[in-house]
Amino acid sequence: MKATMKDVAALANVGLGTVSRVINGVKVKDVTREKVEAAIAELNYEPNEYARGLKTNRTNTVALILPTIWHPFFSEYAYYVETELTKSNYKMLLCNADDDLAKERDYIQMVKQNKVDGLIAITYSDIDPFVSADLPIVSIDRHFTEDVCYVTSNNFAGGQLAAKELITRGSKKIGFIGSISAHHNETTKRLSGFKEYCEGNAIDYAVLEMIEPINDFEQQVTDFFTANPSLDGLFVMNDLMAVDVIDYLMLETNQKIGETIQIIGFDGASLVKGRSKLLSTIAQPVQELAKVSVKNILKLISGEEVIKRSVLPVTFHEGKTTFEKMIKKD
Amino acid sequence: MKATMKDVAALANVGLGTVSRVINGVKVKDVTREKVEAAIAELNYEPNEYARGLKTNRTNTVALILPTIWHPFFSEYAYYVETELTKSNYKMLLCNADDDLAKERDYIQMVKQNKVDGLIAITYSDIDPFVSADLPIVSIDRHFTEDVCYVTSNNFAGGQLAAKELITRGSKKIGFIGSISAHHNETTKRLSGFKEYCEGNAIDYAVLEMIEPINDFEQQVTDFFTANPSLDGLFVMNDLMAVDVIDYLMLETNQKIGETIQIIGFDGASLVKGRSKLLSTIAQPVQELAKVSVKNILKLISGEEVIKRSVLPVTFHEGKTTFEKMIKKD
Repeated sequence: MKATMKDVAALANVGLGTVSRVINGVKVKDVTREKVEAAIAELNYEPNEYARGLKTNRTNTVALILPTIWHPFFSEYAYYVETELTKSNYKMLLCNADDDLAKERDYIQMVKQNKVDGLIAITYSDIDPFVSADLPIVSIDRHFTEDVCYVTSNNFAGGQLAAKELITRGSKKIGFIGSISAHHNETTKRLSGFKEYCEGNAIDYAVLEMIEPINDFEQQVTDFFTANPSLDGLFVMNDLMAVDVIDYLMLETNQKIGETIQIIGFDGASLVKGRSKLLSTIAQPVQELAKVSVKNILKLISGEEVIKRSVLPVTFHEGKTTFEKMIKKD
Repeated sequence: MKATMKDVAALANVGLGTVSRVINGVKVKDVTREKVEAAIAELNYEPNEYARGLKTNRTNTVALILPTIWHPFFSEYAYYVETELTKSNYKMLLCNADDDLAKERDYIQMVKQNKVDGLIAITYSDIDPFVSADLPIVSIDRHFTEDVCYVTSNNFAGGQLAAKELITRGSKKIGFIGSISAHHNETTKRLSGFKEYCEGNAIDYAVLEMIEPINDFEQQVTDFFTANPSLDGLFVMNDLMAVDVIDYLMLETNQKIGETIQIIGFDGASLVKGRSKLLSTIAQPVQELAKVSVKNILKLISGEEVIKRSVLPVTFHEGKTTFEKMIKKD
């Protein structure tokens, strides 16, 4: 019977990943490489076609597919993905998908033709039929029918945390404002977590969910506040929509943000590295999301096992749009 | 005597660029291609090694080098560059140079090794010795010793326009706040234009130029306002620095932005496509900058002639940080 990669790993007393790295010419410690090479020789092991193919056709490029790079959260994420890829001597192709399905398919095609080694994708379009589990792809937020590796922030816990912060800081009537995309993705869990906290704590809440694309934002928000005039705390699905809600409130009402009403966004966007975030927000660990995405895509490219589902913790960031935390007196 | 590309162009009655496109397999009208191919056959023309080399080694990728993609102006520019490249069936590699000279040199090396076809670069580091005029590179803002193709906004006119708008809108004492980079680049002309307008119109002005990297922004700005207490109009070198100045004024002084003091930035940054700009500003024509950059790099890649210096017009964008324009009564 032909020896397998597992046999080599067992004999050399190393992990499968290490065998894969040696076969694919990725740098490992000399002593490790020698052990693996000795095991390969002893077992007369021949790398299978898949592994050989990976070795010979490697381009050392990964494509990053985003809805648009012109967006503070996506550009921060792209910044860290490129930085992480560089550490492994990989280059990054950037694709603004911009709702252009053909463009996304084109990149999937490039992977299949070995023109790029793998994809990291934040996509909200109909690419599901073109994605297969054996394709080296890491998806952010989005679920696919096939068992694709994905990385996401803990959106559910983020929704819970937002509700909790609003209540702890003194809001009496809280609401959620967000949108619904046609494609199931992790961001809907922001509302689920928010609801769960409210219901678990017998807190009254209101919800405005707008169907994308949103053409009458102002009208819908006006109607929402008319129907819920006592709202004094809002969790908005993402930072940019929160900025829109703040602009609306400042122009159209007498509300003072952070004084008569508080707003919490989601993402933790800032204009450039080191600059303060736009508002009080549930911050995604963007650098960590990028690190895990890159680690996973490089593993997939090397034919290594990956954890199919990574959910990273979020944190509350206090900006100027929330009430100051009330100090509990003992 | 051997026929040249010029002979082919003359006989086919087309431009050199068209001949180049036909030789390099770029799509042209059928009738044009036939004319060129007939001329090539008649003259027994053989594409020279350079053109052949370009043809065979074409990767259809261009690398975009930026200081960082995590910046609203650079991400908008990258968005449009990628969009334009896609129209010509080119992919874009993205490099965050992040002051890492080795990383920039690596990409220049990739061009020389035919791993990418060309570079578009916004760079403020010491790469001058590695850049040569025969390298397919388009530089934004930055000058090099060698005669490299560059594209820039009209920074001088932008500085003049900023001073003019401040005065026309009613400021009596105006100032400039900016920084100085070690490398000569077009952005210094923003101050030159500002000064020229003031001096040409006998207007008193103050200047704060901070040397990069700026570690004591707040102290320098405080000193500047202490030395110039009557300032009621400011032109700040770029939008992000203008946001910093606004934050400073709102926190540290009683000034009301747009009421007691007006601020004009430079760039025209917005968070995402279609969203309002951050403040009153001299807006660069970002999409046009991207179009010209891409047009020029594709020409250079095809061995065509390019205009070495493109200076594009800027416009004043009225935001909420300037006084309303006084209406002249006839």
